[in-house]
Amino acid sequence: MLKQLEVLQNWLKEENKEAIFINDPDNVAYFSGYQSEPHERILALLVFKDVSPFLFVPALEKEDALNSTWEYDVLGYLDHENPWSLISHAVKQRIGDLTILAIEKDFLTVTRMEQLQTEFPGVSFSDVTPKIQSMKLVKTKDEIQKMIEAGIWADKALEIGFKAIKEGVQEQEIVAEIEYELKKMGIKNMSFETMVLTGDNAASPHGVPGSRCIQKNDLVLFDLGVVYDGYTSDVTRTVAFGEPSEKAKEIYHIVLRANEAAIAAVKPGVTAGELDKIARDIITEAGYGEYFNHRLGHGLGRSVHEFPSIMEGNDFVVQEGMCFSIEPGIYVSGVAGVRIEDCLYVTADGCEVFTHTPKTYTTIS
Amino acid sequence: MLKQLEVLQNWLKEENKEAIFINDPDNVAYFSGYQSEPHERILALLVFKDVSPFLFVPALEKEDALNSTWEYDVLGYLDHENPWSLISHAVKQRIGDLTILAIEKDFLTVTRMEQLQTEFPGVSFSDVTPKIQSMKLVKTKDEIQKMIEAGIWADKALEIGFKAIKEGVQEQEIVAEIEYELKKMGIKNMSFETMVLTGDNAASPHGVPGSRCIQKNDLVLFDLGVVYDGYTSDVTRTVAFGEPSEKAKEIYHIVLRANEAAIAAVKPGVTAGELDKIARDIITEAGYGEYFNHRLGHGLGRSVHEFPSIMEGNDFVVQEGMCFSIEPGIYVSGVAGVRIEDCLYVTADGCEVFTHTPKTYTTIS
Repeated sequence: MLKQLEVLQNWLKEENKEAIFINDPDNVAYFSGYQSEPHERILALLVFKDVSPFLFVPALEKEDALNSTWEYDVLGYLDHENPWSLISHAVKQRIGDLTILAIEKDFLTVTRMEQLQTEFPGVSFSDVTPKIQSMKLVKTKDEIQKMIEAGIWADKALEIGFKAIKEGVQEQEIVAEIEYELKKMGIKNMSFETMVLTGDNAASPHGVPGSRCIQKNDLVLFDLGVVYDGYTSDVTRTVAFGEPSEKAKEIYHIVLRANEAAIAAVKPGVTAGELDKIARDIITEAGYGEYFNHRLGHGLGRSVHEFPSIMEGNDFVVQEGMCFSIEPGIYVSGVAGVRIEDCLYVTADGCEVFTHTPKTYTTIS
Repeated sequence: MLKQLEVLQNWLKEENKEAIFINDPDNVAYFSGYQSEPHERILALLVFKDVSPFLFVPALEKEDALNSTWEYDVLGYLDHENPWSLISHAVKQRIGDLTILAIEKDFLTVTRMEQLQTEFPGVSFSDVTPKIQSMKLVKTKDEIQKMIEAGIWADKALEIGFKAIKEGVQEQEIVAEIEYELKKMGIKNMSFETMVLTGDNAASPHGVPGSRCIQKNDLVLFDLGVVYDGYTSDVTRTVAFGEPSEKAKEIYHIVLRANEAAIAAVKPGVTAGELDKIARDIITEAGYGEYFNHRLGHGLGRSVHEFPSIMEGNDFVVQEGMCFSIEPGIYVSGVAGVRIEDCLYVTADGCEVFTHTPKTYTTIS
């Protein structure tokens, strides 16, 4: 049995709850080793206090699940069958009636909760989210190793992207180039849609790459990540093509100072809010506070955005083994958009970053 | 005001409900014209019976939303702010206390529902999902035109994929080739992760492309789609590389007959279940019933999987303007995996398919 599944089963015993219904695909993968994207179909993992767990999958995935590393029962359902009555039947067979069911309130829809209520009349729900969050928070050595690999691939992606910068090239052509080269090298998935934003487009922190062509003296912002063996990376670099304005260069160096100061402060015991404040104060004192309009960072692991938020006022205490991003940015419409992001894992007395692409102001000519 | 938003507002009047909370990004885009992927942040559209609607977005997207075609208020929230109390404040400002709030039960998580309950004590929830489903079901001419374009791009993607088939090429290299060429031509997103499955891998209906190399006499299955101006396509073709077994060829022709018979039967008035039965009977009579382990098809539009399911026992009546897939398949481990899929729109007396890549048994040499 996977270690994390054992922890979950022990939690049921400690809390004296009977069963857990997990339906977030990343959580199913974390606890079962079986990774899949079922779209609107039901993929679920049922975990019990005293009896063996089972996987519940669309029939068309059943063979894949049986061939995975999962060693317990796999139940399948055909599209025209009612998955909820099949689940309820299988649960009742194993443990009889159910009074308390733990669910993922962050990942269960109201419709699905109501289906469970119909099948288990009178059941009360408790939330397993905090438990799963705290388990996923501190990564094992094995998980960190995968994230180190994902970081190496992210550096590789940036290298490909920097080489593709040329006057007149469209943002989306650079995206295509990066993903093509990585896929040819065996990478199946990016952590999210690769962003390459140039000039004014980069001044939107969540901009969408399009047909804008790179012009001389643009700043070019890359925000990307690679999935390696189920684990994600996430990195942002902003580089100069030619000679952007002095103002743009000034903004770059403020963001860089904020990034470096926050990373230097990461160690067990510091709070998420303190880290955010270190970076934010630098930006605010330089006069750009209002242009840093997002949190400093976020946890990551199997998902590219995980608990916790590294943000203002969050007194969550950083622990060894946590992995998160540090990504200050300044976005001034018509002037410049700069973000510099690294992800890292917390060590006994500091941290190690996953990405090593240089952060000194880099000019591509 | 967008036509569909007006319809939704009229529905509130007819049903005498006060407000709707929409948070599915595709639904927000459908009703507001503002498309975004906020990840775990809150993106919401609030619609009222008598007063103007507003968009609620992460602060880092506010400028993008203001620059979009949306003509009403845009409210932003910073990461460290409580979005729920901001939403509640804005709602109360507009309409005072709330007694009934319509929500998307299929797309709202339990956590978010509980947040709304906290902000609006005593509120009761009703489900707007059926109304939205019925609105999205029948496409306008403009929507169908976009889906025709998405179909043309899907045909183009297949053409690129077929050209990339060579002995020894890995599945994921072909995926890379297809997406690279399309991105260079300006396509930003595929409808879902492109599937290229060869030989035994194709015998899993939801297989994941990997490092398997194409071998002489393989069947090669392509399942892919392209997003054009927010609307999706979805097509599957299975082609022969060399001379697959007679059994494989036999399976191909059974699936083809099922695909063609079901498409020929599509017209207003037929039920989803009848269409499924037409295809399924052909496959069952040929002795492969148990190897066709999924529904015949699904609706599509902005999302690649939409209401309704074209499946056994579904007495949903097909209407003019509906768009859905017809995708029978047979998957016999160690023998062959074949699926042939077209998406179509229903006309006054039949249907038109969106994809035109030939379906005759095609050998690539």
